[in-house]
Amino acid sequence: MFTVLKTEGNARRGVFTCPHGTAQTPVFMNVGTQGAIKGGLSAQDLRNINCQIELSNTYHLHLRPGDELIKSMGGLHRFMGWDGPMLTDSGGFQIFSLAKLRKITEEGTAFNSHIDGRRVFMSPEDSITVQSNLGSDIAMAFDECVGIPAPYDYVKKSVERTQRWLLRCMARLKELNGREDTVNPGQVLFGINQGAVYKDIRVEHMKELADLDLAGYAIGGLAVGETVEEMYDTIEAVNEFAPKDKPRYLMGVGTPSNIIEGVWRGIDFFDCVMPARNGRHGHLFTWDGVINIKNEKYARDERPIDNCGCPACRMHSRAYIRHLFAAGEILGLRLAVMHNLWFYNDLMARIRKSLDEGTFTLFRAEYSEKLSRRI
Amino acid sequence: MFTVLKTEGNARRGVFTCPHGTAQTPVFMNVGTQGAIKGGLSAQDLRNINCQIELSNTYHLHLRPGDELIKSMGGLHRFMGWDGPMLTDSGGFQIFSLAKLRKITEEGTAFNSHIDGRRVFMSPEDSITVQSNLGSDIAMAFDECVGIPAPYDYVKKSVERTQRWLLRCMARLKELNGREDTVNPGQVLFGINQGAVYKDIRVEHMKELADLDLAGYAIGGLAVGETVEEMYDTIEAVNEFAPKDKPRYLMGVGTPSNIIEGVWRGIDFFDCVMPARNGRHGHLFTWDGVINIKNEKYARDERPIDNCGCPACRMHSRAYIRHLFAAGEILGLRLAVMHNLWFYNDLMARIRKSLDEGTFTLFRAEYSEKLSRRI
Repeated sequence: MFTVLKTEGNARRGVFTCPHGTAQTPVFMNVGTQGAIKGGLSAQDLRNINCQIELSNTYHLHLRPGDELIKSMGGLHRFMGWDGPMLTDSGGFQIFSLAKLRKITEEGTAFNSHIDGRRVFMSPEDSITVQSNLGSDIAMAFDECVGIPAPYDYVKKSVERTQRWLLRCMARLKELNGREDTVNPGQVLFGINQGAVYKDIRVEHMKELADLDLAGYAIGGLAVGETVEEMYDTIEAVNEFAPKDKPRYLMGVGTPSNIIEGVWRGIDFFDCVMPARNGRHGHLFTWDGVINIKNEKYARDERPIDNCGCPACRMHSRAYIRHLFAAGEILGLRLAVMHNLWFYNDLMARIRKSLDEGTFTLFRAEYSEKLSRRI
Repeated sequence: MFTVLKTEGNARRGVFTCPHGTAQTPVFMNVGTQGAIKGGLSAQDLRNINCQIELSNTYHLHLRPGDELIKSMGGLHRFMGWDGPMLTDSGGFQIFSLAKLRKITEEGTAFNSHIDGRRVFMSPEDSITVQSNLGSDIAMAFDECVGIPAPYDYVKKSVERTQRWLLRCMARLKELNGREDTVNPGQVLFGINQGAVYKDIRVEHMKELADLDLAGYAIGGLAVGETVEEMYDTIEAVNEFAPKDKPRYLMGVGTPSNIIEGVWRGIDFFDCVMPARNGRHGHLFTWDGVINIKNEKYARDERPIDNCGCPACRMHSRAYIRHLFAAGEILGLRLAVMHNLWFYNDLMARIRKSLDEGTFTLFRAEYSEKLSRRI
């Protein structure tokens, strides 16, 4: 269930409801790849940093510990201790970015596991079965993510196949949701728009998707090699044809600037590994720009990373966190990741507030460039 | 300030007070080597697992980030966010166990840093100055920790030098506590008994220490090569001559069984890296014995590690923690370390309760062997 509460230009302020609760949009989903957030964060930590939707990875959890094991333990919510909204991706992007020796046929995708090299086959039906076993609230359609640049003809044929795969995903989810032993029978499906940076393919595909009455509409295959302008142009082109009453999800994007610009162009859902990954490398977001906590100049800096309410800033100085990084203490990673994820969740809260107050245009002017610059 | 509240045989139930608070004894001190607990635990986490006294390492913090930096930040309590009782070791043991090319003279010890190889010199006065800069509640005397076995004559001369060093430590601490800019002018000094497993040297040394009216009496240089029987014999021999009204600290020991046997022989303070280190390797303590959480048999085990109140057991199953270890997620280490430290703190609480109730003899009979066995 999605309701648009208010708009400002193309930007939308909404609310999304699913079996495990409600998310205020625009929302940034926090990525817990393997059923945990990298950097040592638990489900309890996610609650403490105001996470609204947790995102888990079908590819990783299918390979280890196995989705059937997780189903036998009552589903991923119970397994990891997270009782809020959850989205699972389809595995398509990880097969594209992590697995080796991919072979794509009409039936599905064969690949070698990045863990032990064993050959694995995943069809659209398999992906949905895995996601049903995990019991997420939102399942993603199984797609092919094509790198950029890619030949026009290949992209066109790939998108046609992705669309045929979507119909198979819908059929399988309907079937599984009707079974008695299903973990989360209220699970819904988001479709994924593809087409690289070929606008005609993208638009044609979005029109086909719009006919299907899906629970949500994702834009996939971006931030994989195109320029930022190409990304924004693509978002503008396809959002024009996305249903107005359904959430729109820009997959795997991006910087604070990308997110503000995405909201500006009508995006409601985001996810990205960047805040956690940057945190682990000591690159920390503040409302003045990005700092590198490993820099010598923070050695005696008694201020918190930023004046935010995150567990790191409430308790610790820059000097202490810098020391933890220098000393190789895991606590440094943990505090840095908590701060960055809090920052992203707080960024979304401030975007929502500005939309509520009709001042998002001003917010964008003030922060869109500033937040991503290194200081 | 130390008060013995009750005894049962040689075992003592007491209470220790210092500038940052009170500890109920027998107590296990939780080791935060570099101003953080390995495995990603913060000062807040220490509070959550019922830590009474935090132990930090002079050697590590002197080398990185530097004790003068920490003093300039208001001391280690403020730097790491821990406001409870704190003990610092003297660096003697780390120079023995970590540093290379040690050269010991009457003046002090020269060694190469394990971080960057640079030559460092530390005298007894230097060690006390570092500990004063850190501002711990309890400073430890700078000693030479001799490996076992070691020649009788060498040990005898080493202990005589350690005793001369102690007098220099006492003089320096008195001087520093009188200065206006001292971080923690209420800092007290514990002496350290040495002598390898030569009982006559040990006893003679403890008698000399007992004459000095120190705030506490540690037994050092054990668990470095001797048998368990030799360790227990040594404790019995020296405790007979340790002042009855001062706390006794068995340094770097040990297993739950060692701790129960140490209490039985009149020890009040313990510390050991073992619960944290074992946790990081997946070896988890329970009241039935030690489990290896990485074992396949826990893959679908829905039970908590143990039925304890620790943050890991309150929230997560063995199956989930096993998955985190298999997937290389840092959260696995964190939960395992929190559980093991909670277990040790809880072990001490149960020992204290049995002493309060006059049932420690029964407690020892039930648990001394059981807790250290692998199941």
